[in-house]
Amino acid sequence: MSETGLSDRPETQLDEDDRLRPAFVRDVLAAVEARDDARARELVSPLHPADLADLFELTPRELRGTLTRALGDLVDADVFAELNEHVREEMVDTMNATQVADIAAELDTDDAVAMIEDMEADDQAAVLRALDPDDRAAIEAALSYPEESAGRLMQRELIAVPEHWTVGHTIDYLRENQELTTDFWEIFVVDPAHRPVGTCALSWILRTPRGVPIVDVMKREQTLIPVDMDQEEVALRFQKYALISAAVTDDSERLVGMITVDDIVHVIQEEAGEDITRLSGAGDGDINEPIGLTVRTRLTWLIVNLGTAVIAASVVGLFEGTIARFALLAVLMPIVSGMGGNAGTQTLAVVVRALATNQLTSSNTVRMVFRELRIALANGLSLGLLIGTGVGLVYGNPTLGLVIGAAMVINNLVAGLAGIAVPVLLDRQDVDPAVSSAVFVTMATDVMGFFSFLGLATLAGLGQ
Amino acid sequence: MSETGLSDRPETQLDEDDRLRPAFVRDVLAAVEARDDARARELVSPLHPADLADLFELTPRELRGTLTRALGDLVDADVFAELNEHVREEMVDTMNATQVADIAAELDTDDAVAMIEDMEADDQAAVLRALDPDDRAAIEAALSYPEESAGRLMQRELIAVPEHWTVGHTIDYLRENQELTTDFWEIFVVDPAHRPVGTCALSWILRTPRGVPIVDVMKREQTLIPVDMDQEEVALRFQKYALISAAVTDDSERLVGMITVDDIVHVIQEEAGEDITRLSGAGDGDINEPIGLTVRTRLTWLIVNLGTAVIAASVVGLFEGTIARFALLAVLMPIVSGMGGNAGTQTLAVVVRALATNQLTSSNTVRMVFRELRIALANGLSLGLLIGTGVGLVYGNPTLGLVIGAAMVINNLVAGLAGIAVPVLLDRQDVDPAVSSAVFVTMATDVMGFFSFLGLATLAGLGQ
Repeated sequence: MSETGLSDRPETQLDEDDRLRPAFVRDVLAAVEARDDARARELVSPLHPADLADLFELTPRELRGTLTRALGDLVDADVFAELNEHVREEMVDTMNATQVADIAAELDTDDAVAMIEDMEADDQAAVLRALDPDDRAAIEAALSYPEESAGRLMQRELIAVPEHWTVGHTIDYLRENQELTTDFWEIFVVDPAHRPVGTCALSWILRTPRGVPIVDVMKREQTLIPVDMDQEEVALRFQKYALISAAVTDDSERLVGMITVDDIVHVIQEEAGEDITRLSGAGDGDINEPIGLTVRTRLTWLIVNLGTAVIAASVVGLFEGTIARFALLAVLMPIVSGMGGNAGTQTLAVVVRALATNQLTSSNTVRMVFRELRIALANGLSLGLLIGTGVGLVYGNPTLGLVIGAAMVINNLVAGLAGIAVPVLLDRQDVDPAVSSAVFVTMATDVMGFFSFLGLATLAGLGQ
Repeated sequence: MSETGLSDRPETQLDEDDRLRPAFVRDVLAAVEARDDARARELVSPLHPADLADLFELTPRELRGTLTRALGDLVDADVFAELNEHVREEMVDTMNATQVADIAAELDTDDAVAMIEDMEADDQAAVLRALDPDDRAAIEAALSYPEESAGRLMQRELIAVPEHWTVGHTIDYLRENQELTTDFWEIFVVDPAHRPVGTCALSWILRTPRGVPIVDVMKREQTLIPVDMDQEEVALRFQKYALISAAVTDDSERLVGMITVDDIVHVIQEEAGEDITRLSGAGDGDINEPIGLTVRTRLTWLIVNLGTAVIAASVVGLFEGTIARFALLAVLMPIVSGMGGNAGTQTLAVVVRALATNQLTSSNTVRMVFRELRIALANGLSLGLLIGTGVGLVYGNPTLGLVIGAAMVINNLVAGLAGIAVPVLLDRQDVDPAVSSAVFVTMATDVMGFFSFLGLATLAGLGQ
């Protein structure tokens, strides 16, 4: 149907956002619970592996084992490649080493590594022993690189040809060697030491007469990926140079693998998503995480926040006497601290994002600090005027209005400065600014919000 | 050098994160300011267009015009395609219609549209008049589709071949028609009505003997993109099905364009980034935005937040008498409201992300609400125990400890429930949950934080 635009696909099972319809999920699970495996398989068999993977994510944890058994061989390597990592880990835990090895053998190196990299050392060793020597060597090599590095993301299956070949020679090689991968968009031209000297898009090969030397078709200006580069940097490099695939090289500049853009799309989505949840103190925040892990991650940050909240409260404590004499200050003080927190979070989000996308660099930091301060001043004056006038009129107390207005301006400036300075300084120390900035910024706006408002009120003689 | 892995590139100008070195930027700008255009051009000419675009973003606004004039024809269409939209808009504003048209004519339809879509109607019409008829027709057609839709993202340059061709026929066609695009990774097979019937990766064509019919090589199961689909949905579809390119079809299911993954990579980065900054109330939060726009966007949300802060303060106002008698309550109350805010933000970030990536659907919403409530209970009990014991001991007042502990549990539950219910309900109303959820969640945690703590304190007879 044209509405979803998927032709020849089982689209009635998908809603307009490509998500499985709840009624379909219910039907499958009902069949599984009724032990009607034939019905479950019939319903599920037209699904794309990505949708079948979604089905597992939408299935309550306690039913996933039964669903796996019911579907049998429909749950193949392609489905495993698409599964959420937490769901996959849980499913892998229930399988024996031979079953895991059978699936890993079907996958490209990068997907096989993703499947077994988080297993216990013993279980991982058992799976590796069950693999044939070639697959084992490839996976062991990948596991020797750091987690989240290019070495883990790359696949070893790629096409590399020598410099002296022609276009025709290359095409014949591809036609005659049916065991080669079909999953490639560019080929790499290498020197005798297997160092890449050029990259050639398939469209250029197709559009060039057979007799032309491959070195006359290839692009010499290449973007190479060092095997130990962090996946976030790999993703930025793919994005910046609009790459479809890229050669991965080792320390001796030899070609050791290839990364394709479809793997990078997942990395970008993942890294950008992590920034949102980390900024909030929810870690990687995946809804498929085991709940114990979620509680531990979030609670850790909440306890750190509790510490800063106690510090902020102790600032209020300094003015307990003033508050006892003039309790209205306690009513109004959360407005100043809260608004500072909001303004600080705005700046923080923008800055964290600009750092993650390499838009904010040491070349423009100073300019951006002044930009944030100008914004903070404009917003602080507007909000200060608004709340100051309101408070002055409502309580018939112009001094109180002046105090809260001035505190609002001060706290907006604190928020703007902390919102950019904290993440930039953390980034310079190679600390992920998304993980830890919010605590410091909120502490700054809470402490300075209470201090400026209650301090100015005391100075102005309110509550005497 | 192997460190950055860019061979045959001017890498000494880039740091290890592929960013232009500050010293290089300073040198270029010094040359420009000294009117030494030759020196500036010499420095800049080895740069990749993406790096040249970065240079403009790193240059202070007031110098960008001078830089453009100094670099002359080095600032070509490829650079414009890579520029940040705000910087590009500002540069386009300083050019006349013919200059803009010359650059637009060099670009693929999607990049040309991105360049002129935000121009004033008059200026846009002048540019369109200055284009040759073919380019004008293509761009006008694209502009007829909604903003941020597939029709704006797609390029019209693509390869489509009829069903009756062979592989050899296809290769000859590509070799003999040198005006065809070289920027493609798949070809589309179409029926006589120009409806796509299959897609064929170039690697399959290269690996198949010439005599084989193209319909035996192509994949019939296609993922088609309706021309009016929103770009965020297009991006999710690319990601879900690991697409490199996809055919775009109109209402009659005819092939009208092609979207390639390199454009989608930008969309994913952009949409994920928007969720972070929108969640904070900073709109699209681009550091290159005109400052007036930034102030307006942020101030709007701050004023909405001011409204909710006043509501929360009025809840405190209900207990002004209690506070006057027992000012310690005012010292402690921000802890309860602040911690609720933190917990609510954690849940909110995770839920917004899960909604944006289609992980949270109506099939698992109920299960996820219970998941969040269990997490909230675990965290609330832990934090309540901690702060309750601490307060009870420090102030030698067990009742006060009990009150703050209980309030902490209540407010964590409120935070968990609001953190998932608010974004899910907004999403069902087709409101972007990233834009407006935080205000409601913070209001809930502030109001309920103050109300539960001060209310329980009053009930317990504190401050009598």
